[in-house]
Amino acid sequence: MAEIKYEIIENIGVLSESPKGWKKELNLISWNGREPKYDLRDWSPDREKMGKGITLTKEEIIQLRAMLQDFQ
Amino acid sequence: MAEIKYEIIENIGVLSESPKGWKKELNLISWNGREPKYDLRDWSPDREKMGKGITLTKEEIIQLRAMLQDFQ
Repeated sequence: MAEIKYEIIENIGVLSESPKGWKKELNLISWNGREPKYDLRDWSPDREKMGKGITLTKEEIIQLRAMLQDFQ
Repeated sequence: MAEIKYEIIENIGVLSESPKGWKKELNLISWNGREPKYDLRDWSPDREKMGKGITLTKEEIIQLRAMLQDFQ
């Protein structure tokens, strides 16, 4: 697999931590030098490995927030 | 790839729609008959195909909501 370069612009928060220390995090990340996107993903304890995740635009984050406000 | 069975228990909302009609949705989904989990994922117009996504527990959703409340 080609090397993926990324830069964590902002660590917004941690959603959970597994017994093995992997954390599900919301970050603002620039992938391969491109414009930063919001990113929801699992990370190993030292961020050496990344798990599967998805990227979200700011508009999607705003929409998600509105959606969760009514969430029980 | 082995067939994956899933049942959408609840459609919570749509975060966005692409020009080709794919939607990024938050759903409550039971995968292979297991206990339902929250699922953030892209879906083709007729839900024939699914894109990459992540599953979230209810606790992670609650945590995410709290995190986004301060989001600018």
